[in-house]
Amino acid sequence: MKQPYLLFLGSEKVIENAKTAAGIAYWRPEACKGQFRLEGGTIDLGLPDLDLDEAVAAGIKTLVIGIAPFGGKIEASWVSVILTALEKGLDVAAGLHDRLQDHPEISQIAKTHGRTLYDIRKSDKKFDVGTGEKRTGMRLLTVGTDCAVGKKYASLAIEKEMKSRGVNADYRATGQTGIFIAGTGISVDAVVADFISGAAETLSPANDADHWDIIEGQGSLYHPSYAGVTVGLMHGSQSDKLVLCHNASLTHMDGLPNFPIVDFGACMDGYLSIARLTNRNVEFAGFCINTSKLSERDALDYMQRVEETFGLPCCDPVRTGVAKIVDKLGF
Amino acid sequence: MKQPYLLFLGSEKVIENAKTAAGIAYWRPEACKGQFRLEGGTIDLGLPDLDLDEAVAAGIKTLVIGIAPFGGKIEASWVSVILTALEKGLDVAAGLHDRLQDHPEISQIAKTHGRTLYDIRKSDKKFDVGTGEKRTGMRLLTVGTDCAVGKKYASLAIEKEMKSRGVNADYRATGQTGIFIAGTGISVDAVVADFISGAAETLSPANDADHWDIIEGQGSLYHPSYAGVTVGLMHGSQSDKLVLCHNASLTHMDGLPNFPIVDFGACMDGYLSIARLTNRNVEFAGFCINTSKLSERDALDYMQRVEETFGLPCCDPVRTGVAKIVDKLGF
Repeated sequence: MKQPYLLFLGSEKVIENAKTAAGIAYWRPEACKGQFRLEGGTIDLGLPDLDLDEAVAAGIKTLVIGIAPFGGKIEASWVSVILTALEKGLDVAAGLHDRLQDHPEISQIAKTHGRTLYDIRKSDKKFDVGTGEKRTGMRLLTVGTDCAVGKKYASLAIEKEMKSRGVNADYRATGQTGIFIAGTGISVDAVVADFISGAAETLSPANDADHWDIIEGQGSLYHPSYAGVTVGLMHGSQSDKLVLCHNASLTHMDGLPNFPIVDFGACMDGYLSIARLTNRNVEFAGFCINTSKLSERDALDYMQRVEETFGLPCCDPVRTGVAKIVDKLGF
Repeated sequence: MKQPYLLFLGSEKVIENAKTAAGIAYWRPEACKGQFRLEGGTIDLGLPDLDLDEAVAAGIKTLVIGIAPFGGKIEASWVSVILTALEKGLDVAAGLHDRLQDHPEISQIAKTHGRTLYDIRKSDKKFDVGTGEKRTGMRLLTVGTDCAVGKKYASLAIEKEMKSRGVNADYRATGQTGIFIAGTGISVDAVVADFISGAAETLSPANDADHWDIIEGQGSLYHPSYAGVTVGLMHGSQSDKLVLCHNASLTHMDGLPNFPIVDFGACMDGYLSIARLTNRNVEFAGFCINTSKLSERDALDYMQRVEETFGLPCCDPVRTGVAKIVDKLGF
């Protein structure tokens, strides 16, 4: 995808639905030159509001649909903006369930004007079946007690901290927001089931012995909707280190009131038993906890208790940073 | 799919590549009225060799491509047979990686003659994400130490034995051969990864409290290529009972010499820990072992040792039948 980006925010009012745009703006500020809002839109990422002519004049190359309303559909009110952007010379990228390429008018106009449409979520790329064969290089995978507990944020924070210490490290994106941030990656939950671990093997290929892939986890082994994706990603990743992510305020699994959050110890045992199939030496390197709804004192107490119980560093990537985990990795 | 079937065997010489046709002929003899072989083909399922005119005269409705050569491609030598079959009024069904519908000539002729093409392996059907919500009815799932250890055969044998005792039971197919046999089912390894458990929930919907779904397992929790599929299928199946399948002659995982077969006890613990997420009461009901390469005495000794070690019935569905397992279920 060509940078810089214009982030399309539609008429969105709910920040959770704009987390793709917010994630790109936070992690790749240098790539984001403006935002584009429709009437009624209240999300403000602090970027200049540019119209399409201003965006072109500012050298912007790609309009990124940075919102994902429930259902993941292309809304009627967006279409004229997308068509005009294509006509004015921008590529368009989206990570929706509905593909830009499957929209007859959008795909026709893109063709006419020689523009590229990027459908991040649904790739047509074919993968091989996983082999389980050991690859060179080191790999860290973030895993979660649940979905949506900050695995992407933790992975990006660990990559950043490692790079700041001169480590040869790369964040490997496995979901749409991460792919926009990294500019590359594989949306593993959109791969055909037979090829999940094969896709994960492709995502983190053999590398220098001292190179670290920091792989963004997906789903959770304890979430009954998505655990298949998690397991395939784990087997293909052959992780040397795992980091357990959790949100300290959760009382049950995402969207499933009848599924309680699993105990940390049981959770770690479960993850290790799966991960050992393709890497006997895998171990946990620490915890990343979202403590945003706790007071400073409660958050620090919480993290100290986890450290004392498990003998591993416990961080909140936002509140404390992840230096302790990178220390533990030996850098 | 409309029955009866004409089983297409091409010029195949390797019985393993004709296991789809062989499976249909074995489990649904009443649906198979003939076989069709090209020059050089040596596979004989003991059915009448019919040409396409004879097949139509015999009332056959569907030509089933019952072979799957390595790579799963539609071979050039098959195309004229498929086209003639369509012209003469037969539907055509296949479970190949290459879809009949994606072959321009085949799809054109089918359209012209108003015939239906069934691509069993790659469905366009969309599924919802799994919910983990408890459904009524009872479910048994076959699981394996490895892929290709007889899970389908065991499932069909258990269904047959249960039906012979008057139990309200249905085999639920999760792979191509099983779908041909059952006439319905979902090829779960071809589903988009996010929807594996959702597809499994669709496969065995809520049913009468005394109804049993006998669900064909896929892959293995211990096979690094396919465990994601296995886990999604397990979570969606919410199995009450598991049956562990194994081939007594295996020394390593299918196609992966560096991956040894896991110990039965560890294997059962692993399966139970995954299955308990969506059914706390799940337990093993027994073992189905392929002992075909052992002598009668060695096979019986093997099964007796397993029974003594785990206190559960151990059968070879071919050598001994599965009556002991159905006894254990309380029928």
